[in-house]
Amino acid sequence: MLKTDQMKNIDVCLSPELIHLYDIKDKSVVIVDILRATSCMTSGIANGVKSITPFANLEECKAMKNQGYIIAGERNGKKVDGFDLGNSPFDYKQEFLTDQKIAVTTTNGTVAIEKSKSAALIIIGSFLNKNAVCNFLQQQTHDILVLCAGWKGKFNLEDTLFAGALIAELGHAFKPSCDAPLAARSLYKEAKDDLIQYLQNSSHVQRLQKLDIGKDIAYCLKENEYDVVPVLNEQGEIVAS
Amino acid sequence: MLKTDQMKNIDVCLSPELIHLYDIKDKSVVIVDILRATSCMTSGIANGVKSITPFANLEECKAMKNQGYIIAGERNGKKVDGFDLGNSPFDYKQEFLTDQKIAVTTTNGTVAIEKSKSAALIIIGSFLNKNAVCNFLQQQTHDILVLCAGWKGKFNLEDTLFAGALIAELGHAFKPSCDAPLAARSLYKEAKDDLIQYLQNSSHVQRLQKLDIGKDIAYCLKENEYDVVPVLNEQGEIVAS
Repeated sequence: MLKTDQMKNIDVCLSPELIHLYDIKDKSVVIVDILRATSCMTSGIANGVKSITPFANLEECKAMKNQGYIIAGERNGKKVDGFDLGNSPFDYKQEFLTDQKIAVTTTNGTVAIEKSKSAALIIIGSFLNKNAVCNFLQQQTHDILVLCAGWKGKFNLEDTLFAGALIAELGHAFKPSCDAPLAARSLYKEAKDDLIQYLQNSSHVQRLQKLDIGKDIAYCLKENEYDVVPVLNEQGEIVAS
Repeated sequence: MLKTDQMKNIDVCLSPELIHLYDIKDKSVVIVDILRATSCMTSGIANGVKSITPFANLEECKAMKNQGYIIAGERNGKKVDGFDLGNSPFDYKQEFLTDQKIAVTTTNGTVAIEKSKSAALIIIGSFLNKNAVCNFLQQQTHDILVLCAGWKGKFNLEDTLFAGALIAELGHAFKPSCDAPLAARSLYKEAKDDLIQYLQNSSHVQRLQKLDIGKDIAYCLKENEYDVVPVLNEQGEIVAS
């Protein structure tokens, strides 16, 4: 075990609206949008998608169709008309996507990526690839910021729980550098034995349940389905690391 | 017990930097800066201070000296040179302050008040007057937003714990309307048996401990010392309700 003063720092930003308060240029930023953008991205890259290019803007994303991309678009939990894929991790596992390039825009997740572009490294995290992300982060030299995508700028539980899972897992090598990681870790410890049950009252789960996608939610909360770490490359594409 | 659909809503904003995401004009906003601005204000009003006028700007606050005000100024946890009072709740209990008017500026708390001025009602909350605030809120017709002052825009634990205490206390009459109140309540339930111990690792307590004000911290975490509810009146002064 490292001594405290030898440890790198790990911090948590609870909303993209707070990202300006953090100096990210020398940090690895882990983007988290559990329900469902980063779970989809993990699922896609693990299942053979060549690259996923995030767009904050809907029209820019749609225009990529003409450049041979499969286009994925979600707003308010629903697939946008005219797009090939919505925001279900099962959409991203379809066989025809092997070796394809996807352009994607979502309500929260792609905004979080856009706001993090000055970071040293951008990593896509989800419960589906939790241990792979932890192993990868331990091999990096940077301090870490976990950025929760939240819901339209507001705090959400599921992203914070995943941040807490990373803090709990990396506690031997990284030091929580503020109060948000302490809170996230506390919440994860309380929730971890039954994440689905814990999230029953959360606002986003209730919102999604109205859309009848309980299967998506259960899948997005599974830990370590995939041993893959999607990262953003210099061309702005999410690819396997 | 009220049925869920008859209940008013209670929400929590974890930082003044997120306040623009909330529609506050018809809400009661409870300002929370446990260490130490709202604890000081509670202590002052309970001990006979006539009014406390918050200023976000240091120079504007200082200028009030010439208008007969006692001036209180804190930045980064320390009393600012040239001010009469710092940010200790014990400063606010001094006998010479009876019936005096105070002008105050602090790092976080007064900023939170400034950003809430469009609210229907602004209430000063702290552990010191927790039950008084709860009783008062139940007599109001508005939905509630608890605004945590945080630390320079970032999330902090002690303000969130107090928000959680309000959610726990008011659960029979107010419905948590998003994820932040659920998280705050979970954290408070975990911490409530020994708030001081729970906060030992928090960033602000560690920051304040360097300033040797453990006595302040212990005092600010005492529940229900005072049966007073300071509110902001139309003249922009905090007075007893």
